[in-house]
Amino acid sequence: MQRTRGIVRYPGGMLKRDYTTQYCSMAATLEIIGERWTILIVRDVFLGIRRFDDLQRSLGVARNILQTRLERLVEHGILRKKAYQEHPVRYEYRLTSKGADLWPVLMSLLQWGDRYAIDGERPVIVEHRGCGGELDDRRRCVLCGADVSVTEALAVRTGARRAPSGATVPA
Amino acid sequence: MQRTRGIVRYPGGMLKRDYTTQYCSMAATLEIIGERWTILIVRDVFLGIRRFDDLQRSLGVARNILQTRLERLVEHGILRKKAYQEHPVRYEYRLTSKGADLWPVLMSLLQWGDRYAIDGERPVIVEHRGCGGELDDRRRCVLCGADVSVTEALAVRTGARRAPSGATVPA
Repeated sequence: MQRTRGIVRYPGGMLKRDYTTQYCSMAATLEIIGERWTILIVRDVFLGIRRFDDLQRSLGVARNILQTRLERLVEHGILRKKAYQEHPVRYEYRLTSKGADLWPVLMSLLQWGDRYAIDGERPVIVEHRGCGGELDDRRRCVLCGADVSVTEALAVRTGARRAPSGATVPA
Repeated sequence: MQRTRGIVRYPGGMLKRDYTTQYCSMAATLEIIGERWTILIVRDVFLGIRRFDDLQRSLGVARNILQTRLERLVEHGILRKKAYQEHPVRYEYRLTSKGADLWPVLMSLLQWGDRYAIDGERPVIVEHRGCGGELDDRRRCVLCGADVSVTEALAVRTGARRAPSGATVPA
């Protein structure tokens, strides 16, 4: 292994002109989930929004873009399609375990954004289900100290929203 | 607060046609760091690559794109410029505390990618400095159990790299 002053240096030749040519787990992840809208689609599925029309309404994204992104997420095994109606057949999108394992990515984006990216009250608080404690930056319950898993977490809307002026309106 | 079957639902009107109109901490974070290359620039600065030419060589990104992304990161207070030479003045880029707080985002992307996005041996392992234990998905040392902070973490290159064929070559 090559160490340089306690940190690692990539030889220049390793990182090329495109993500796909970088042998880096972070770059490889961004190749899959880094496209515009993709993470917000995954967020919505985490929040229980599973059907095409509901996702489209929630996100306000163009239908063709949503369709492309959903297909790619299914192709990558992050979402799976499940029929919820037979005649005509209609599908909803569920997280696979690979998809559910994106929860730490979503939580870290949420928590950084709560602190630095939004101007006003947090729109969503994530709690330890049943216990009610908030989650710290290691997804531990601040009340009982438990390591909280995705199925034990509860996203609670505070009611805070951005006013048309850009200022926020508490609930 | 509004709860629906244990999960929260966004009213359709809250999420609009563009990230900037969504009052969501995740979307707000992506507005800042979601642009192509931005996270990989932040990754490189974490790894100690701080100067424009070194970043350009490491990433292989076009100079004008790199310049734009760096300016935006400085504007958002994620990086700061520090002169390392006077005649002529030359700057390097350092993480602010706001930037260093992106570490959990990078770690979650890295760990998901290690598991699901790369095909082959992990190119980088993050260890607890001094102790040598790896970090779990809550950034705790698997050897001593400590909560590891960014300054206590050490990125170690394994030497694994992708062969021209796409197969990986262990060190």
